Amino acid sequence: MTVMEMIASNPTAAAVEPTALADAVEAVLECSQACTACADACLGEEMVAELRECVRRCLDCADVCSATVSVLSRQTAVDLGLVRVLLEACVVACKRCAAQCEEHAAMHAHCGVCAESCRRAEAAARALLESVRDGGVPQPEPVGDAGDLGA
Amino acid sequence: MTVMEMIASNPTAAAVEPTALADAVEAVLECSQACTACADACLGEEMVAELRECVRRCLDCADVCSATVSVLSRQTAVDLGLVRVLLEACVVACKRCAAQCEEHAAMHAHCGVCAESCRRAEAAARALLESVRDGGVPQPEPVGDAGDLGA
Amino acid sequence: MTVMEMIASNPTAAAVEPTALADAVEAVLECSQACTACADACLGEEMVAELRECVRRCLDCADVCSATVSVLSRQTAVDLGLVRVLLEACVVACKRCAAQCEEHAAMHAHCGVCAESCRRAEAAARALLESVRDGGVPQPEPVGDAGDLGA
Amino acid sequence: MTVMEMIASNPTAAAVEPTALADAVEAVLECSQACTACADACLGEEMVAELRECVRRCLDCADVCSATVSVLSRQTAVDLGLVRVLLEACVVACKRCAAQCEEHAAMHAHCGVCAESCRRAEAAARALLESVRDGGVPQPEPVGDAGDLGA
Repeated sequence: MTVMEMIASNPTAAAVEPTALADAVEAVLECSQACTACADACLGEEMVAELRECVRRCLDCADVCSATVSVLSRQTAVDLGLVRVLLEACVVACKRCAAQCEEHAAMHAHCGVCAESCRRAEAAARALLESVRDGGVPQPEPVGDAGDLGA
Repeated sequence: MTVMEMIASNPTAAAVEPTALADAVEAVLECSQACTACADACLGEEMVAELRECVRRCLDCADVCSATVSVLSRQTAVDLGLVRVLLEACVVACKRCAAQCEEHAAMHAHCGVCAESCRRAEAAARALLESVRDGGVPQPEPVGDAGDLGA
Repeated sequence: MTVMEMIASNPTAAAVEPTALADAVEAVLECSQACTACADACLGEEMVAELRECVRRCLDCADVCSATVSVLSRQTAVDLGLVRVLLEACVVACKRCAAQCEEHAAMHAHCGVCAESCRRAEAAARALLESVRDGGVPQPEPVGDAGDLGA
Repeated sequence: MTVMEMIASNPTAAAVEPTALADAVEAVLECSQACTACADACLGEEMVAELRECVRRCLDCADVCSATVSVLSRQTAVDLGLVRVLLEACVVACKRCAAQCEEHAAMHAHCGVCAESCRRAEAAARALLESVRDGGVPQPEPVGDAGDLGA
């Protein structure tokens, strides 16, 4: 698979566990697309006025997932403090979007598909976050006082 | 697969051939991630100074692919004129990035993987573009005079 | 202003006219944000069901403008063929979004503000596109046969 | 100014203090562009091999700032929990990028300009974050158990 091949061929070893990293990149990438598509599908529904919150959760989740994939795809001079707080944001975005879409899954198939994608992304991001926190991974020297942000 | 499920469950039928659309979304989405990863891998290479053009092609390709996936993922009130010119930009970006990465594929495995991903995305975007141009697809009423842009 | 300072301090001279480039970056950047905001404002309107096309035009325009700004912000190893076709896509996206928003400008102030931002971005992108086409600018050696795309 | 006009004309009142919001959107938007440009300028420097960490900080900061601007630009059904953790990520990204660029500001003017832009964005994001935390703002009902993420 392309994602793992790119991780393995980078001249810099991944600062996090490669399989957890590849799983997260793949799941979060898929989620980003699903959320963009679900926001559009909700917009096209007759009852769009009742789906505003769902559109919002999907648009936010797509944006956060997209940024998360980009940051996770880089292995040069990684900043684990940023990776951690961005994964936290990604988990929040996926969880809230999943919860919202699940409410409409019975009525709108796209919400069901999107919710499942969000749950996979949430789980993969959370697993990666836990592996980073466990600290088996060497930390880069801290830059500034980011610690005050819980990062 | 999630992409096709989202296409099929959108309340608005796709304005382009669904299989060609799903193929393009999947290939261009994968390419966007591969290019972000390849730009980083090139940056980490000892000979980075000789890989500047490759980094540039990858960064541009990632950005254009990402925008293309977002626009292709929407089916409500599609603007085929925009889809067409954006697919053209996507084909150019993928082709140039592939050509550049192919030059270093023997030396850098990540460039080989990235080039293959770009070629798949180029082919899928081109196939979708041709199906849109063939005009089996009903056109939305034109807004303004976009035709002067070859769109 | 930051945009022009960044252009002027890049070790590689801009491949396009710097003032036209800075104008385009600033206008297209502003437009991208305005379109994201207008899509959201339309979504929040009571008559959202009648604003679907407007939301769609805004979301697409935001994505295309965002990619355009990123590509225009780079001066290393520029690919003018890609710059040209991407500017064309940007002009189309801005023009269509402006036309759509102008229809609701009397009723929704956000559509009026967004339309004006789109028109400024369209004009700036068009001016830059024309300067690139005029060819006072030296062309990089072509990579592949992109010419068949009108790029 | 466009950003404030869009905030004021949204049918949904901003869930955060409008002036702090507008300041953050403007500063973070500008920072995103400056970081994209600085990554490219560093790439073009003769000593690019010594600027790898700077390129990385800039690319990450651009991605996180871009997502942050998009989420901040929406006022419909806001999720303050996500806004908070994303602002934290934004502060971290801006701070680390500024610290890195400041090290090269004397040698590379683009790093100096970028560092200043990052510091403005960091300050504006931090100010907005503090206003959100102060809780003068009504909270939306929590979805799920996001609290365990410090969000």
